[in-house]
Amino acid sequence: GETVRATLFPGDGIGPEIAESVKQVFNVAGVPIEWEEHYVGTEVDPRTESFLTWESLESVRRNKVGLKGPMATPIGKGHRSLNLTLRKELGLYANVRPCNSLPGYKTRYDDVNLVTIRENTEGEYSGLEHQVVRGVVESLKIITRQASLRVAEYAFHYAKANGRERVSAIHKANIMRKTDGLFLKCCREVAEKYPEIQYEEVIIDNCCMTLVKNPGLFDVLVMPNLYGDIISDLCAGLIGGLGLTPSCNIGEGGICLAEAVHGSAPDIAGKNLANPTALMLSAVMMLRHLQFNEKADRIHNAILQTIAEGKYRTADLGGKASTSEFTKAVCDHI
Amino acid sequence: GETVRATLFPGDGIGPEIAESVKQVFNVAGVPIEWEEHYVGTEVDPRTESFLTWESLESVRRNKVGLKGPMATPIGKGHRSLNLTLRKELGLYANVRPCNSLPGYKTRYDDVNLVTIRENTEGEYSGLEHQVVRGVVESLKIITRQASLRVAEYAFHYAKANGRERVSAIHKANIMRKTDGLFLKCCREVAEKYPEIQYEEVIIDNCCMTLVKNPGLFDVLVMPNLYGDIISDLCAGLIGGLGLTPSCNIGEGGICLAEAVHGSAPDIAGKNLANPTALMLSAVMMLRHLQFNEKADRIHNAILQTIAEGKYRTADLGGKASTSEFTKAVCDHI
Ligand SMILES: CC(C)[C@H](C(=O)O)[C@@H](O)C(=O)O
Ligand SMILES: CC(C)[C@H](C(=O)O)[C@@H](O)C(=O)O
Repeated sequence: GETVRATLFPGDGIGPEIAESVKQVFNVAGVPIEWEEHYVGTEVDPRTESFLTWESLESVRRNKVGLKGPMATPIGKGHRSLNLTLRKELGLYANVRPCNSLPGYKTRYDDVNLVTIRENTEGEYSGLEHQVVRGVVESLKIITRQASLRVAEYAFHYAKANGRERVSAIHKANIMRKTDGLFLKCCREVAEKYPEIQYEEVIIDNCCMTLVKNPGLFDVLVMPNLYGDIISDLCAGLIGGLGLTPSCNIGEGGICLAEAVHGSAPDIAGKNLANPTALMLSAVMMLRHLQFNEKADRIHNAILQTIAEGKYRTADLGGKASTSEFTKAVCDHI
Repeated sequence: GETVRATLFPGDGIGPEIAESVKQVFNVAGVPIEWEEHYVGTEVDPRTESFLTWESLESVRRNKVGLKGPMATPIGKGHRSLNLTLRKELGLYANVRPCNSLPGYKTRYDDVNLVTIRENTEGEYSGLEHQVVRGVVESLKIITRQASLRVAEYAFHYAKANGRERVSAIHKANIMRKTDGLFLKCCREVAEKYPEIQYEEVIIDNCCMTLVKNPGLFDVLVMPNLYGDIISDLCAGLIGGLGLTPSCNIGEGGICLAEAVHGSAPDIAGKNLANPTALMLSAVMMLRHLQFNEKADRIHNAILQTIAEGKYRTADLGGKASTSEFTKAVCDHI
């Protein structure tokens, strides 16, 4: 087979350690990927107005596939969050987060099997805010037909390609009639093209209540940016937290940037204590995107088995294993 | 003792039945309240631009205390939601929702004991929306210093008066730096006046994840309007749903309007099937506001006992009792 080039942003804090884990696992599994590694800088690149260099972005644009560890958003108001820079510069319009109960890792829920698909470029994240008069500030939520159609298309396409039965559009159009109303209108338009996929609309407050009562009722959820931010974290909580949930971002021109969405955990950085599961599972999503399905399955199963056995668990999951012990266990299962 | 006049809006759908339950319970407990009942009309009152009459609003303004059942928001774009009209006209600036696990009613959580306090007048509920160009719409989120200080003051006052230890301000100020930033700034200002109450700030996505993993970590939560809408429903889900959670609204001039926040359930209206628990518990909040603490305790205990015994439970809780059977059981416990 051919070797594929993929961009790797190890990221900050625990990023380099967990990226190392992924590299080891890929080596053992014989994944034909050649990493093009880019570090997040400590100086602002004027071309990106952020700590992310232009070369890093070009690498993803060229390779069209990449893996990203956590990036700390530097404190101080002058600079954009690195995560937001990436989303904007690469047109990462859909953030996909599958959320499945992990066999053997017990939480209050054992029936979670859903996917959240978040619009990732606009909405409440427009960055448009100002003070109207002293003591009165406003933020703009922007919803466009283009971005809404694009993420809705992706959600239905995903549902169909992955044998899912239903897409639920999450909204608050009873209050934000125009913005969330437009989002729903776009979802309905797309839904008509997929008669084989059920379509429903669920108000966000009700959605959150149902998710904690009975998450098994949901399948694929699609929603505007902020609701996606909130609901994807809620869902992660159902199965044990952000340390266990993969994610990938779909961008313009077919880019797929897989990403661990947890923080950079500076307190444990460099101590060989971090849990590499979320980044490994994200890497598996990247492999599926590349249609390396056999490799993806093998690695995925090895991760699930290691967690299910419970012998090597990192501290965040109540265990005592180090990052490298957990990684070795996964490698041994491959 | 003196008799107090209180406004009663039975509301739509199941509203009249569950309001009847509250009246019965109050009678049996000998609560010295005289109800001033106002029905929600079916014609728009031009003075309120809604289905709520001016007289209804005046009644609450005069009595300063009231109880409200569910009100359906009529479909059609011309008219405001009745709930929103009430909030606006009566300046109901804080929506208070205690959320406690009910002994004997099993959910996945048994350690919930928190209170959400929601800013209830502005934020994402401004109603300000427009189309910028075809296919591009925007909604305005408005945060003011005045409303933020007012709800923060209420939250800390509530925490202190109720022996609570901590107030958590929920926000997304890493993205909405100006609006949520102002909200946080106001919370911090108020926090300084209450050194005996701990204060923390939690980002909303993280808050939702923590709530589903470990709700016992939270005490009093205060937040802008939409986050309050979302989180209060999530919390209700933790203990069994909106049929079990009371709420009250604090308004200008010392108004207290207690409210069941569940829907009007038109499908079961008039069938003697509805669960009156949320309205009863809301009525208990109203009694505490009036400092009828002995009556409040007796009724509260009777409700909790009836639910804990589990002999009379309505269909929404998996039981077979009718509204009147459940109500009778509560009365028998008083
Ligand atoms: C770090 C933050 C800017 C980001 C977001 O709000 O989108 C994060 O919560 C996420 O979900 O990726
Ligand atoms: C019915 C709706 C307008 C309302 C809201 O969004 O505030 C409801 O969800 C609530 O929480 O009272």
